[in-house]
Amino acid sequence: MNANTYAVILAGGRGERFWPLSTSRRPKQLLALVGRRALLTDAVYRIRAIIPEKRILVITSADLHAAVCHLLPGLPKVNVIGEPCGRDTAAAITLAAALIKARNPNAVFCVLTADHVVGNAAVFRRTLKESFARAAAADVLVTIGLKPAFPSTGFGYIETGGRLAGPTKTVFYRVRRFVEKPNERIAARYVKTGRFYWNSGMFIWSLSAWERALRRHCPPLARLLDTLTPLAGRVGFYAALKRAYAGLEKISVDYAVMERADNIVMVEGAFPWDDVGSWSALEQHFPKDGHGNVVVGNGELMESSGNIVVADNGLVALVGVDNMVVVKAGAVTLVCRKDRSQEVKRMVEKLRRRRDAHPWL
Amino acid sequence: MNANTYAVILAGGRGERFWPLSTSRRPKQLLALVGRRALLTDAVYRIRAIIPEKRILVITSADLHAAVCHLLPGLPKVNVIGEPCGRDTAAAITLAAALIKARNPNAVFCVLTADHVVGNAAVFRRTLKESFARAAAADVLVTIGLKPAFPSTGFGYIETGGRLAGPTKTVFYRVRRFVEKPNERIAARYVKTGRFYWNSGMFIWSLSAWERALRRHCPPLARLLDTLTPLAGRVGFYAALKRAYAGLEKISVDYAVMERADNIVMVEGAFPWDDVGSWSALEQHFPKDGHGNVVVGNGELMESSGNIVVADNGLVALVGVDNMVVVKAGAVTLVCRKDRSQEVKRMVEKLRRRRDAHPWL
Repeated sequence: MNANTYAVILAGGRGERFWPLSTSRRPKQLLALVGRRALLTDAVYRIRAIIPEKRILVITSADLHAAVCHLLPGLPKVNVIGEPCGRDTAAAITLAAALIKARNPNAVFCVLTADHVVGNAAVFRRTLKESFARAAAADVLVTIGLKPAFPSTGFGYIETGGRLAGPTKTVFYRVRRFVEKPNERIAARYVKTGRFYWNSGMFIWSLSAWERALRRHCPPLARLLDTLTPLAGRVGFYAALKRAYAGLEKISVDYAVMERADNIVMVEGAFPWDDVGSWSALEQHFPKDGHGNVVVGNGELMESSGNIVVADNGLVALVGVDNMVVVKAGAVTLVCRKDRSQEVKRMVEKLRRRRDAHPWL
Repeated sequence: MNANTYAVILAGGRGERFWPLSTSRRPKQLLALVGRRALLTDAVYRIRAIIPEKRILVITSADLHAAVCHLLPGLPKVNVIGEPCGRDTAAAITLAAALIKARNPNAVFCVLTADHVVGNAAVFRRTLKESFARAAAADVLVTIGLKPAFPSTGFGYIETGGRLAGPTKTVFYRVRRFVEKPNERIAARYVKTGRFYWNSGMFIWSLSAWERALRRHCPPLARLLDTLTPLAGRVGFYAALKRAYAGLEKISVDYAVMERADNIVMVEGAFPWDDVGSWSALEQHFPKDGHGNVVVGNGELMESSGNIVVADNGLVALVGVDNMVVVKAGAVTLVCRKDRSQEVKRMVEKLRRRRDAHPWL
């Protein structure tokens, strides 16, 4: 693709939902949860076939900077940026935009997630390529929507309007609105209409379109862009970043821009996709034994069914246990009912309040 | 007590029921399962107030000899005997009897368990003292019976006949018969009669009474006694023991002698007693939290009730889990339904057939 294309990978997660395997020092995106490689490595490998590594930027937290550089030796070190603190996705994208603007004011960039599973890289790349072309040609914000597999209450939704004309089989839609995570009843209604898509958190737009959107919908981030761009690659950059971030409120890209903008276009991501949102999601990615158990690592199960067992070393043994998540990682074992694996996050929050829990988080 | 009294503690368990905390190298009797000291140490401390350590013998397996000596520095090393292989309780008692006979042919000895919990040491010792007196005075086999707390199917039972006259408040009974572990229906009937007691596996008799019982009911063990006695303390002892044991069949004291002898007397053990037979037994020995959980070591429980959690180090975290046993020990985590904790033994047997499981057993 042409030299104006850049990729920004957001890799700032805190590692709560896959605790105790994921921790603050080794969050989900750094884990090989599903395949042989870390999810972040997969994300880079998936895109580098169309965008060279010198134009791939990874935004992570300062704590993880060294680990991410180590994981991605092919990426120039200056392309890995550690945020001094988390200010949510709109700030992270703006930080990346400043660095890109300093290199190439005519850039078009995609924003990608670091911790999702994408099934068909060829379709994924084709979708991106055509989105890049559309974003380069007009002042639009392209978002990748995913056909809902079920009425999830865990995702935001995109309501589409009419189809847009296009030369290829990749389908673009007008967007009526972005909506936040619905309750079950509303989610069911959304899915029934056929017009609603899951918000994947992946976007494609030109630098100038992003800049315009910020000036219109989120002036504090427009100012962040103005502050950081002239400092890119200079000595004072990280100090300025720290100062600027300190004064920012946390705001997601959905809330800051996507729910407000009127120039959004959705492209259907016709590739298998999963956000691997909690331990129970592993069931989709691993084969099951004859009793519906998924066992990763050394497990020995007796009269047990429907479990997800993960052992990073040693052994997990189950006797007469059904529908549980059992994870042994380092010095910690988690046992959680499978239908409550979303609540692992709450357990991590609970442990944060314990003084002695630091080594386990 | 007089210099003819000896104590034999049988400490040969294989550590299956409290796996993974207990292992073949550190079976139950070596663990501080309930108090601060190993169960075996407690067993020795309980008796040494009336029998000095030089007259306490511990029969264990050869594998555990060093560990037992280390645990019991007050015991003369020659009093800890490691069996070359397990031949069940009748052989172990006979081995001890041979060593005692070589020291004192007029001995009276008690046979005690190494891995049970006894609640009132004073009553326990009074029971033993009076049993020693009775065993010294007549050719009887005294057995300690325990008033059944519930219709257990896990113990053998002793059916008593009439009360025997005695000068003290310790009560002795004639014994009608020893019966093996009953099924639930029969156990309930036993308990209802008021005549049946649990067989504790603790006995008191004179050397000569034991010898007579062997000659009458179990000639192979009478021969073992004859073989080993002259070798006690000599160089060839362990080699002879190994040879003799190799040819023996496994036979329990109940089956070899108690179910056959007609000179048995039962003394009621009027002290709190528990054989701590499986993980679920811990509930009786530890305080529970407000949701009926027993937590030993570092646990963090969220919306979980009725569990038994043991963490030898690190952390066990539970989310929405009820009535489970969760044990983290070394590199192994066991999760087992609480009402099936007797089946942990079967899990260990299953693992024995796995080639890579050796380090975990």
